[in-house]
Order: sequence, then C-alpha cells, then structure tokens
Amino acid sequence: MSRFLDIGVASLVPYVPGEQPKDAGYIKLNTNESPYPPSPSVIAAVKAESEKLRLYSDPETSDLTAAIAEFYGVGQKNVIAGNGSDEILAFIFKAFFGEKGAACPDVSYGFYPVFCSLFGIKYNPVPLDENFMIDASAYADVTDNVVIANPNAQTGIYLPLDKVEEIARSRPDRLVVVDEAYVDFGGETAVPLTKKYNNLIVVQTFSKSRQLAGGRVGFAVADESLINDIKTVKYSFNPYNVGRLGIAAGCAAMKDREYFDACRSKIIATRGRVAYELAKLGFTVLPSKANFLLIRHGDVGGEEMYRALKQRGVLVRHLKDERIKDFVRVTIGTDDEMDVFLKKTAEILGELK
Amino acid sequence: MSRFLDIGVASLVPYVPGEQPKDAGYIKLNTNESPYPPSPSVIAAVKAESEKLRLYSDPETSDLTAAIAEFYGVGQKNVIAGNGSDEILAFIFKAFFGEKGAACPDVSYGFYPVFCSLFGIKYNPVPLDENFMIDASAYADVTDNVVIANPNAQTGIYLPLDKVEEIARSRPDRLVVVDEAYVDFGGETAVPLTKKYNNLIVVQTFSKSRQLAGGRVGFAVADESLINDIKTVKYSFNPYNVGRLGIAAGCAAMKDREYFDACRSKIIATRGRVAYELAKLGFTVLPSKANFLLIRHGDVGGEEMYRALKQRGVLVRHLKDERIKDFVRVTIGTDDEMDVFLKKTAEILGELK
Repeated sequence: MSRFLDIGVASLVPYVPGEQPKDAGYIKLNTNESPYPPSPSVIAAVKAESEKLRLYSDPETSDLTAAIAEFYGVGQKNVIAGNGSDEILAFIFKAFFGEKGAACPDVSYGFYPVFCSLFGIKYNPVPLDENFMIDASAYADVTDNVVIANPNAQTGIYLPLDKVEEIARSRPDRLVVVDEAYVDFGGETAVPLTKKYNNLIVVQTFSKSRQLAGGRVGFAVADESLINDIKTVKYSFNPYNVGRLGIAAGCAAMKDREYFDACRSKIIATRGRVAYELAKLGFTVLPSKANFLLIRHGDVGGEEMYRALKQRGVLVRHLKDERIKDFVRVTIGTDDEMDVFLKKTAEILGELK
Repeated sequence: MSRFLDIGVASLVPYVPGEQPKDAGYIKLNTNESPYPPSPSVIAAVKAESEKLRLYSDPETSDLTAAIAEFYGVGQKNVIAGNGSDEILAFIFKAFFGEKGAACPDVSYGFYPVFCSLFGIKYNPVPLDENFMIDASAYADVTDNVVIANPNAQTGIYLPLDKVEEIARSRPDRLVVVDEAYVDFGGETAVPLTKKYNNLIVVQTFSKSRQLAGGRVGFAVADESLINDIKTVKYSFNPYNVGRLGIAAGCAAMKDREYFDACRSKIIATRGRVAYELAKLGFTVLPSKANFLLIRHGDVGGEEMYRALKQRGVLVRHLKDERIKDFVRVTIGTDDEMDVFLKKTAEILGELK
C-alpha cells in the first residue's frame, strides 16, 4: 500500500475472480463460461468492425441498445449497455445506494458486498432459508434497496417471477435490482415487469448464455428515469465504456436467436443429465436453473473435492463462504467435458473407500 | 431524474464527449482520433482472438502489461491497463484523491473536474499563464495532488520534462499524475521519471497515437505500490475491465513500433504544414505538440467557425470554456483531409470580406 492511498480504499477487500489458467490443458468448469463459441455471425461482425478501430465507439451504444430493446420488446430508452454487467452493477450501486443500504441474499454473488465497501454503502445480508432458497417475505420489512441474483449466484436456485414481483411491489419507495446473469438457462426474465414497476432494474450479461465472457458486454433494463440516472454515472466515469468490438459482438449475438436457443437448450439438457448422474453418486445437488450445479458429498469436503479434481485436470470452483464451504460449484460444459468430470469424480469417490 | 437518485450523483454535470456522427460523410477532425487505421498486425490479432470470446479475459491483462513494460523498459508490476485511459484516471481519482484535492490547469481535459464531482474531491483549477502555458512554479505551493495533461489537452502545448520533474520533486508528499494522451506527437514521456519519483503516475492511451480509440485501451505506469493501490480499486469495480479483443489489439499495437513511428511522423509533418498555412491565413495557432491545433482568427468567433465548417462537411471541436471560447480545436487528419479543411477555412474567411 502506498502512502497516498485513500483511507476508504485502504480498507477494501477486493473481489477475487475465479482462476483463469494460462494452461489450456484444463477442463474449465470454474467460471460459468459457455462451452460453446460465439455464433459465427458474432465472429464475422468482430472481424468487420476491426477495420474501424481508429474511431471512438458510439458513446450511446445505439446499435446495441436497439438490438437489446428489440429482443425484449422494450423501448431503446429503457436500456443501457456496459463493459460487462459488473460495470453496470457498479454504476447502479453508485447511482442509487448511497443513502439506502443494500439488502442481498447472504449467499449470492460475492461482488455485491465489495461494491458496498467501494462506495461506502451499508451491506445488509438477508439469510437464505435452510434449503438455500430466497425467502421473498424476508424482504417485506427491509427498507434498504434490494439486490438479488435470479437464478441466485452460487446456488443456481430460481425465484419464481411472482415472488420477484412481490418484492418490487411491497415497497415502491425502494429500488429492487434483479441480476439475471443466469436467467436464460430455465428461468423467466423480469424484464416485462420493468414496465409496471418503476423501482425495478433488471441486469443481464452476455458472458454466460451469449458466449461473450471475453467480450465484456452487459446491460440493464428499467424505467427511463432510472436508465438516465445510470447514464449520469456512466458519463461521469467512462463515456466510451463499450468499445466498437463489444458493440458489434453484442449486436450480432443478440440478433442470432436460433444459435442462442440451440446453445442454451444443449446446456439445459446436459445439466439435467449431469445432475442425475451426480445424485446417483450420492451427491446433494441443489436444484439449479443456471449453467452450473452446486454440489456436496458427505464423504468429501468442498476444498478437498476441488483439489482432487484440479489434480486430475478438471477445474471447478470452491467458495469459502461459511454456508457453502462444503460444496463445489461446477459449470456445465459440453457433454464430453462433463463425461470426463463425472468419471474423475467417480474415481475420487472410489479411492476414498 | 428518478426519485431514487443519490443526492451526490444528482448534482453531477457529466462529461460531454465530442460528436460521433453516424453520418460518415463528414471529415472528422473533432475528437483527436488517428486518421490512419490500426496496424495490419492489430487487425490480424483481433480476428484471431475473436474465436476465443467465450472465455473471460485475463483479469491481470498480463500479455498487455508485458508488452507495455517491454516498450518502456519498466517492470511489468509498474503497469496497469484499463478500458481506456478515462477508466484508469477514474480509478486513480478514486484511489488517491479523496482526502487531498486535485490541482489541474484551468484549461485542460474537461473530465478532471467531473471525476472530482463524482468522487467528492475538491477541484482546484490553477490558471495557465497568459500564453496558455502551464506555469510549473504555480504548483510549488499547492498541497493538493496534481493532475496535468502533457501536452496539455485543448492547447496542445508541451511542458518540458524538467518542469514536470520540478513539480514531482517539489512536494514528495503529494501525488503528481501526468496524462500523456498526446505525448507521442513530439513530447517526451515522463515514464523514466517514475523510477525516481514514487509520487508520480504517468497515464497513456492507445486512442490517439496507436489508432485504437474504438478499442478502449489505456494504461498507467508508476511505482509498484501505486499500481497495486489502483488495482485495489479495479478489483473492487470491474476485474475483467479489459476484454480479450482489447488485450489482443493493445499487444499487437505496442509491438508494431515501425507502424507506430510511421503514423506519428506523418501526423507531425502534416501538423507543421497545416500550422504554417493557418498562420498565413491570419490565424493564431498555439504551438502544439499534440495531434491537434487550437486556433483563433480575429474575424470569426470559435462557435461561428465550428458551425461554418460543419456546414461545409468538416467537423472540428468548439469548447465553451471561457478562456478558449474564441478558438476551435482541429484534429490533424490525413494530408488530403487537411487540404479540404484549409480550402473550406479559406472560403469561410473569404466570404466575410
């Protein structure tokens, strides 16, 4: 730490992203990326756009927000795009949470408390129930703004849309942010509810279901007044936040609905099969509607399982949060990748006997 | 404004980027982009990387920081990369300026006071002298941190390196940030001074001299302790801040020294010729070491000149700051573009007679 560091920043505990090994030899099931490459139309769009890199990108990202608005049947003014959904979330925390606190599930995306520290916001963790489910009624008495991931990060469990609506409706004087990073794998988006509730913001990412983790594109949909407020932060922070290649890739990805549907269908099918096989091996498998499974086995600790799999060339994620430290989180890869994962997992369990 | 907006954000006056017209018919001399496309190796690198977009980018951006470190002869730990230099500057303001104010030239990059508002930092504008030059001695008594653009934004005037050193040396207990967006067009970088002064941060961008305005790549070089502090903010804000295509493009651009030198030499030569022709037309031309000229003519106001040129298909920038409102800022384009600009300018002056 230098002698110049601001006292508020000095106490930050930054987010720790999952391992990104340079060694391509691993089967990488640790950061919930898509096992499928971007649509050929995305690659073509990036290649064409690369000739234009000398010029700044459109700060309004109009082509991209138009494509998103078209996909979801909302107005273009109801959409803002960002350099990944992390950036959009950061803008939202900065814009709206200063005076209100942030109520979030106690097991969820680890970045929410980090944003709170960064901007001096009160963090209010609301416990999941004993089945790791979000209890919507627990938010009725909370006056803080609410941030939930749906399906929830780490658990993969989906909160039905009427429960999301219940949270938004119960207190119109607080903001509800629904982070739908994983919604395309079996959940239903709350985007249509943003027309009815002007205290609701839906955040999504192109990193998971649209194969663009390395392209850094995310967005939010909400009432126009909320979007304009988020833009106030964006234009005070980084007006050209999405580059030309991100805009081009995002547009093309949003427009290729067939490819999007084909990939997510494959992941949903693979997830069902893997969950079944894991249950047969004696695992507790939380009921996931995401592109990952959070699993626990009575005979092996979470960290032990992570290490044993890594030794065998399979990278999964172990999270140290107290409530889920006995679990590992396994991204759904291709069928072939998951067969290797299942085989190695069975081997590890076999060696324990 | 929504009813949820934080009171501190509500008072922000965001940065207004230069026009990015969708109409490609303009000769675009308004936002200091390069008139030359990226190096062929950049385009090839982007195309190759586009196949890998499903995977997150390296949060450490190691390949890119290695290329930058190699170019400047510094350690890789002395470099951090960002999603454009605006993002890097935002991280720096957040990391170091909370308790200190920010002293900046009163005519400079318009984003500095915006960052101050965003993070609640005291903004201390220090007047340029009557020739629009930075007076290094004016900073000797200032206890605030210092941010200067060198060459200075808007004016293009370069502050010799010994004066930069004087500012850094005079008060080791304050930070000095040198924004070198335009340094490659005839200035000398302060990067080597970062080895001697651990209160000095040099910020650069790939947007101007490296033809990547639309690719969003910037970086800072400083003592390792300062870089680590900036990383604390980055990892609390957006760990994957530079995507795969930005990293690939930035690496390739940094490695193609021959192309870099060829393009900047052409721009320097064109700038000299255009400055001469403008002087012949009766313009006051500030002595620029940047890829733009700030010019004034006694017969035409700045806004009038901007409008007259726009009407004739040439886009330049008019800035409303009181001290330079009689000027227009003209980016150096290709020789052909500048010939059109000179012809149209002569026409406008001719019609006044």
